[in-house]
Amino acid sequence: MERTALVNQIKSKQSFLCVGLDTDPNKIPVHLRNREDAIIEFNRKIIEATKAYCIAYKINTAFYEAMGSKGWEIMEQTVKEIPSTHLKIADAKRGDIGNTSDHYARAFFETIPFDAITVAPYMGADSIRPFLAYENKWTIVLGLTSNSGANDFEMQEMKSGGRLYEKVFEIAAKWGNINNLMFVAGATQPKELNRIRKIVPDNFLLVPGVGFQGGSLEEVAKHGMNKDIGLLVNVSRAIIYAKEDEHFAEEAAIIAQQYQVEMNGLMSSR
Amino acid sequence: MERTALVNQIKSKQSFLCVGLDTDPNKIPVHLRNREDAIIEFNRKIIEATKAYCIAYKINTAFYEAMGSKGWEIMEQTVKEIPSTHLKIADAKRGDIGNTSDHYARAFFETIPFDAITVAPYMGADSIRPFLAYENKWTIVLGLTSNSGANDFEMQEMKSGGRLYEKVFEIAAKWGNINNLMFVAGATQPKELNRIRKIVPDNFLLVPGVGFQGGSLEEVAKHGMNKDIGLLVNVSRAIIYAKEDEHFAEEAAIIAQQYQVEMNGLMSSR
Repeated sequence: MERTALVNQIKSKQSFLCVGLDTDPNKIPVHLRNREDAIIEFNRKIIEATKAYCIAYKINTAFYEAMGSKGWEIMEQTVKEIPSTHLKIADAKRGDIGNTSDHYARAFFETIPFDAITVAPYMGADSIRPFLAYENKWTIVLGLTSNSGANDFEMQEMKSGGRLYEKVFEIAAKWGNINNLMFVAGATQPKELNRIRKIVPDNFLLVPGVGFQGGSLEEVAKHGMNKDIGLLVNVSRAIIYAKEDEHFAEEAAIIAQQYQVEMNGLMSSR
Repeated sequence: MERTALVNQIKSKQSFLCVGLDTDPNKIPVHLRNREDAIIEFNRKIIEATKAYCIAYKINTAFYEAMGSKGWEIMEQTVKEIPSTHLKIADAKRGDIGNTSDHYARAFFETIPFDAITVAPYMGADSIRPFLAYENKWTIVLGLTSNSGANDFEMQEMKSGGRLYEKVFEIAAKWGNINNLMFVAGATQPKELNRIRKIVPDNFLLVPGVGFQGGSLEEVAKHGMNKDIGLLVNVSRAIIYAKEDEHFAEEAAIIAQQYQVEMNGLMSSR
C-alpha cells in the first residue's frame, strides 16, 4: 500500500486506528470454541464489525505460532479476510543476517501478502535491508517499545550522546524513506514522542500500548501527530476481548467506534 | 536437555558441532526437487549422515516460514527426525512484550518440542523471561552477531562504559543461569570472545559464522572455550550444500567429520 493511499484512508475515515488481532484460543467466546474454524470465525467477525472504524489490522504472529502449522494456516486465511483498503501488518519482530532476512521478507511479503512487517533493529542494516527492498511494502522498525524492558537497553545512554532508541531512529531512518519505513513507538512513553518527532518528523509511527497497557491516546496525538497524521495507534485486547459472550463483535464495534470518535476529535482540533 | 547431558555428549563425541538446517528449496539437489516431501527427505538424509559428528541441530525458522504453513509443517516433521541425544535449536530470534513472548515460548517449547530458541534482546527483560521460565529448556540471547550490521548498534559504546553487546551479556546473564541461558557470539569477531568470556565465563556460546561466513574454528576455540568446552559452533551451508548431486549426504558427512576431527584436536590440545 502506498503512503498516499494510507493517508487518504486516514483522512476519509477520520481514524488512525489499527486493530490488533492477537487472537488467543483460550480467550475467545465459549460458544465459538468447539468450532473447527473458531479463530477464523472470531477474526472474521471482528474484522467485519470494526473495519468501518479502523484503517489497519495487525496480526501478532506469536499467537498463531503457538498453534503450530495450523496457526500459520489460520494466519494465512485471516489475511485474506482483511479488506484491501486496510493496511495488513505482520507484527513479527523478525530480523537476522541478510541471507536469512531475505527469507523472512519472502514469508511475510510474498507467501502471505502482508503490507507491512515489524522488525527488530539489534542486528543492524543488513538485517533490515531485505525488507526495504520490496516496493509498496512497509518495514516497521522497533524504536521505543511500550514494555518495562524498554529501560534495559532502549533507554540507555550512548557515549556519542542520546539514548540507544534515539540512535535506532537516527540510523535506521537513513536505510529507508518515509514511503517504506515506519517505527514502533510505545504509547506508554508519550513524552519521548517529542524527541522522536525531532528525529523522524515525517515517518509514520506504529503506536502500541493504548488500551490494556494504559497509554493515553490524547497524549500520543499531542506529541506524535504530524501533518499527515503520521500515526497508527494499535489497540488489541481492549477491542477484541471487549465482551466474552456471543455479542463480542457488536461490543468490539462499539469500542472501535469510540476510539474513532476520539481520533476524529483529535484530528479536528490539531 | 540438561547441561550435564549436553556436556557429556560433547565430551563423548569429541565434538561441539551444530549443524544448521537452513534448507532452501532452491538449493537442494535437483533429483529431490520433484518429490512432495523434498525438504523433509533432504533434512532426514542430512541428519542421518551427520548425527555421529555433531551434538546439535539448528533450524532457522526463516527458511521454513518462506514456505508458509507448509513450511511450518516441515519444521514440525524435521524436529521429529532429530535424535533425542541432540540439542534441537530453533533459530527464531523472537522477542516481544511479556504477554506475547509467552506465546512464542509455547510455540517453540511445547507445540514444537525444541530444546532451545534464539531470542533478540532489544526489548529487555520481560521479553526474555517467559522463555527462561521453562525447565530443561535453553534460551539463547543474541549477544554479538556475525554480520556486518553488528557495527550499527551492537558495537557502539555506551555512556556507562563498554559496548552495547557487552551490556547485553552483563545484564541478560542475570536473568538466567548457566543451566538455562546461552548467548550467540559470532565467529567473525573471535577477538571479542576474550571480552565476552570475562563477562560470562561459564555460559555456553552458540557460535555462527564458521564456514561460509569465514570465521575460524581455531580462533573461536582459542578465545571462547571454557572448562566445559562451552561452545556450540554452528555450520550450515558449508555442510548441507557441500555437494549438489545425489551424493550430497555422503559429502555432508565428510565435511561434518572434518569439523569433528578438528574439534577433537582443539579439545585435546587445550
